[in-house]
Amino acid sequence: MKLASKLGLASALVALPSLGLAQDAVPGVDASSDTIFILNSLLFLVGGFLVFWMAAGFAMLEAGLVRGKNVTMQLIKNISLFSLAAIFYYLIGYNLMYPLGTWSVDGVLSGVWGVGVLEAVGVGRDGADDYGYASTGSDFFFQLMFCATTASIVSGTLAERIKLWPFLIFTIVLTAVIYPLQASWKWGGGFLDAAGFLDFAGSTVVHSVGGWAALTGALILGPRIGKYKDGKTVPMPGSNLTLATLGTFILWLGWFGFNGGSQLAMGTVGDVADVSRIFANTNTAAAGGAIAALILTQIMYKKPDLTMVLNGALAGLVSITAEPLTPTLGAATLIGAVGGVIVVFAVPMLDRMKIDDVVGAIPVHLIAGIWGTIAVVFTNSDASLGTQIYAIVVVGIFTVVASGVVWFILNAIMGLRVDEEAEITGLDMAELGMEAYPEFSKG
Amino acid sequence: MKLASKLGLASALVALPSLGLAQDAVPGVDASSDTIFILNSLLFLVGGFLVFWMAAGFAMLEAGLVRGKNVTMQLIKNISLFSLAAIFYYLIGYNLMYPLGTWSVDGVLSGVWGVGVLEAVGVGRDGADDYGYASTGSDFFFQLMFCATTASIVSGTLAERIKLWPFLIFTIVLTAVIYPLQASWKWGGGFLDAAGFLDFAGSTVVHSVGGWAALTGALILGPRIGKYKDGKTVPMPGSNLTLATLGTFILWLGWFGFNGGSQLAMGTVGDVADVSRIFANTNTAAAGGAIAALILTQIMYKKPDLTMVLNGALAGLVSITAEPLTPTLGAATLIGAVGGVIVVFAVPMLDRMKIDDVVGAIPVHLIAGIWGTIAVVFTNSDASLGTQIYAIVVVGIFTVVASGVVWFILNAIMGLRVDEEAEITGLDMAELGMEAYPEFSKG
Amino acid sequence: MKLASKLGLASALVALPSLGLAQDAVPGVDASSDTIFILNSLLFLVGGFLVFWMAAGFAMLEAGLVRGKNVTMQLIKNISLFSLAAIFYYLIGYNLMYPLGTWSVDGVLSGVWGVGVLEAVGVGRDGADDYGYASTGSDFFFQLMFCATTASIVSGTLAERIKLWPFLIFTIVLTAVIYPLQASWKWGGGFLDAAGFLDFAGSTVVHSVGGWAALTGALILGPRIGKYKDGKTVPMPGSNLTLATLGTFILWLGWFGFNGGSQLAMGTVGDVADVSRIFANTNTAAAGGAIAALILTQIMYKKPDLTMVLNGALAGLVSITAEPLTPTLGAATLIGAVGGVIVVFAVPMLDRMKIDDVVGAIPVHLIAGIWGTIAVVFTNSDASLGTQIYAIVVVGIFTVVASGVVWFILNAIMGLRVDEEAEITGLDMAELGMEAYPEFSKG
Repeated sequence: MKLASKLGLASALVALPSLGLAQDAVPGVDASSDTIFILNSLLFLVGGFLVFWMAAGFAMLEAGLVRGKNVTMQLIKNISLFSLAAIFYYLIGYNLMYPLGTWSVDGVLSGVWGVGVLEAVGVGRDGADDYGYASTGSDFFFQLMFCATTASIVSGTLAERIKLWPFLIFTIVLTAVIYPLQASWKWGGGFLDAAGFLDFAGSTVVHSVGGWAALTGALILGPRIGKYKDGKTVPMPGSNLTLATLGTFILWLGWFGFNGGSQLAMGTVGDVADVSRIFANTNTAAAGGAIAALILTQIMYKKPDLTMVLNGALAGLVSITAEPLTPTLGAATLIGAVGGVIVVFAVPMLDRMKIDDVVGAIPVHLIAGIWGTIAVVFTNSDASLGTQIYAIVVVGIFTVVASGVVWFILNAIMGLRVDEEAEITGLDMAELGMEAYPEFSKG
Repeated sequence: MKLASKLGLASALVALPSLGLAQDAVPGVDASSDTIFILNSLLFLVGGFLVFWMAAGFAMLEAGLVRGKNVTMQLIKNISLFSLAAIFYYLIGYNLMYPLGTWSVDGVLSGVWGVGVLEAVGVGRDGADDYGYASTGSDFFFQLMFCATTASIVSGTLAERIKLWPFLIFTIVLTAVIYPLQASWKWGGGFLDAAGFLDFAGSTVVHSVGGWAALTGALILGPRIGKYKDGKTVPMPGSNLTLATLGTFILWLGWFGFNGGSQLAMGTVGDVADVSRIFANTNTAAAGGAIAALILTQIMYKKPDLTMVLNGALAGLVSITAEPLTPTLGAATLIGAVGGVIVVFAVPMLDRMKIDDVVGAIPVHLIAGIWGTIAVVFTNSDASLGTQIYAIVVVGIFTVVASGVVWFILNAIMGLRVDEEAEITGLDMAELGMEAYPEFSKG
Repeated sequence: MKLASKLGLASALVALPSLGLAQDAVPGVDASSDTIFILNSLLFLVGGFLVFWMAAGFAMLEAGLVRGKNVTMQLIKNISLFSLAAIFYYLIGYNLMYPLGTWSVDGVLSGVWGVGVLEAVGVGRDGADDYGYASTGSDFFFQLMFCATTASIVSGTLAERIKLWPFLIFTIVLTAVIYPLQASWKWGGGFLDAAGFLDFAGSTVVHSVGGWAALTGALILGPRIGKYKDGKTVPMPGSNLTLATLGTFILWLGWFGFNGGSQLAMGTVGDVADVSRIFANTNTAAAGGAIAALILTQIMYKKPDLTMVLNGALAGLVSITAEPLTPTLGAATLIGAVGGVIVVFAVPMLDRMKIDDVVGAIPVHLIAGIWGTIAVVFTNSDASLGTQIYAIVVVGIFTVVASGVVWFILNAIMGLRVDEEAEITGLDMAELGMEAYPEFSKG
């Protein structure tokens, strides 16, 4: 459908000269079909490299929020999970996600080791079939980054106690099967899409899935030693708040690609204006989340809390992700601000439930993701509250069950958790024999 | 005017087929009007996200140049000031800045909570009025980032002693009123623009305004305890020079968007060639500033000074910002190099005047900004030295008076400065109860 | 040749209306010649700022891998080398590199201080001669970044013992003469290009040249004091692995510009599809390198090694750089994986040869660069193994001899190496009187 409507514009260009050849005012001339194809592909490429950059953001955020003795492990997890996502989404996930004959089906079905996912080198436009609305390679590149983001979400919650290899094997299953399967229900044109579920850039499809997988893992893994003692939560402050702040800024930057690129097209006046709206709304939602958390922590604790402000900004971003296009700037700010409020209340709530989420990924990605998915109904008249909740529940149950099975199997076979001594020593020396800051003595 | 000239190109395209339908060599075919609109909007979006990234640059630069005990406070100030700028520029500033019926007036006047600043979703091009030369959303996004940059400049100078909330309230006034009002005089088509004042990307409109506001604040606030003792300046070295260097690289990168995006158009051969010139000149001016500071500190102090080199690069960037287009590469290098020289002399000069500027923002943004504004006359024959100086003075007086009033009121009502004990302990523990590097013991 | 083929597209557009004015399905409409020019220039600008960002990546990687006492020196070297590369490539290198009448010759020959390298401001398209396939400024900006990358490679290997000024003077010669001269043999249309040598984005032209210059310097400079003792290699762990990881992610991001921009065109369906392939292949090669190093260090040492994983990713990137377009995703992953394997074996091999390469730049850029250049023959039927090896050898001999002469002269005149006391104290205090982390006590 989209393909047809895009190509229609090309016809219009060819027809245009009949409208008037003189220097009359003209209401507008369409971009040519090649230009549209190029601009759409460019959106995927720029959006894709911005979302790639989010992998660095997660790495810095998490390295900053864990204690110094677990930083190296957190870094190796982050770069490895991204790399595994890249490989396994390509080998398995991408094909699973678009199984229904979408525009890239020819490429996909021809097999992963052949021409495969990508167009041939120097592809022309010999036939209408091969000449979609954007290059397959750019689409693949962009989609891959969303899959990898889902995996990045999990690592923060489970930090400081999970073993490297079981975590990485979980990442493989998540990026090869769990994420693509449920993503196909919406973005592969599956039953949730048919039901009218709206999730523009993935508050549910990406963020809640990462959050559910993290929550399931946290429940099976249990809290860190000493985290909950005599009914109290023991603070375990992050070792490097500049890194955590840098990570947040990186994620904020990358989110312009995440949400803006999800317009999937930039070759018409309407599309680029929509991408612009999305950039502006995404930015203001993050601002709303940060300021809500700033004010709320000032009021509640008398002292503003930087980590809450950072997570507030991120929760604002997650909240606007399900619908970054239709809100006005004012509505986007409020939707983001609610995300910030959620974080401030959800972080201690999880602690009361003894669910140990080291970086706050469950409030940010799961709870704000649910909120954002529901908030679609306030700004998009096509949305149905029932359908949104239905999709949240379906995706949630699927992810919890699928993740739970994988975590249980991994736990049974190889054990998920490092031994007590290693956890107390720190995973860096115990598991890797390497310190992140070998010269900085611990206070 | 600009709108009209852009649309003229579209007419030319429609007329082109009459020039020759065969495979003759053609001197060139214009982009279609849609394509021009899209490419202009794309310039704003890419330029905008690069300038957004500068917010992270300021945060890292400042976090690296303050002492360890004030890092968390500097981080929370930076992310909060950006967020407040985003919200208040949208609520008030953007409307104040373009009040005179420029191309976005319909959107702006229709109110902030309605369709407001942005185009409608999926906007077409039904009427000539709504079909400008770029999407309103992309313009808003880009302009917002300039406003936020102005606010970022202030925080570094006043670090390590100003309270969080008065600083943030000042930020609100700066981004809602002070910056937009004076910016409208030039970029909103106001009296400075009419007078022939030239400031391509804001050496005066952005950087000197931030610098004047910082200077005014520094005078009212006074120096840090112990900074000037027995007529001598006591060095208070930054806690993390890798962060400061990272921040400088981030700012350098963002500046391509800052200056390049200020071409405001990329839809013609001439415009994209100009954007390219600007990229090249911006880069070489930064290089000139860095090398000038490197050589000068080697000569003067026998030891090159990294923080001077970093600030030299930044001063080079500020210096070329008033006119990054017309200089040759050689001239741009020299203009930037003078910026670097300015920094090396201005930093100790401010100290002799007991003006305590923690990160060197006044030399970099104010003094190099003035230099850059004046340097326009060397490379742009349209510039008048008298007019440039007139604008520098008008903007300076306005900003100093307006900022001064706000600082005085805030000082009277709530006090600007933390108490002595808190300053000595460090703002992080005293005001926030949180350390940036809790595990790294202090030497 | 390329110019002609691009302009042919413009003619095709003009001819198109004769094909059919009705709303018939059309297979495609070319972008206009202006649009092609703009999109090609845009590719250079975006690619260029991404490669600029790699300068920050090298700075962070190296600052993270040296010991704390040498961090400030490493930072000042990195920002200074980039700045000098910017100035001297412009003054001398760019002209040397394209001496043979390529499309930018008019601009280049008119001299560096005049109109020089860049087009005139607001250039139109008055004559076919001036209307190339991209703006000269964008090309210059892009090419400059490649030259600077070559210089960045050298600094890491020679860290912790080389004096600042001889290193910077070497950088000047490298970027003004050595790099541009040999680059002209391939990319300036010289004899290696004529011989059929294939090096898409510079596994040999950029990375091996940096690697050879580093190797030559390391041989002349000798290892750090205490590195090799009683036949054993003494580990000297990097001071900050989060920075090293950040640097790797920055380089990975920048590489999309490095390889993608080397397509040199984005104005046709085929070109943008090729750029997309390159993005996807570049990403998966890095992933392959990282995972290969992860698995191999797990097997060989029982503990995965983060610095090996980081260098594995970088080696994967270098390996795919000679031919990022033609491989399938599977082949690209394998080519990158071999790069990762190379690193794991080459790092200890160099140590056994007592070649002290502080950050592993020789394995990553030189050895993986050679591998990548050879690997072209597996995926590109136009490549000849003999020619590839011939070019590797010619470039290698030239770079070693030229660098060796410069290093020897510098050593004779001013001495390359700091004195023993300075090396033990650390270069930061001894040479610069400044610490990177003054408050963090050393363990």
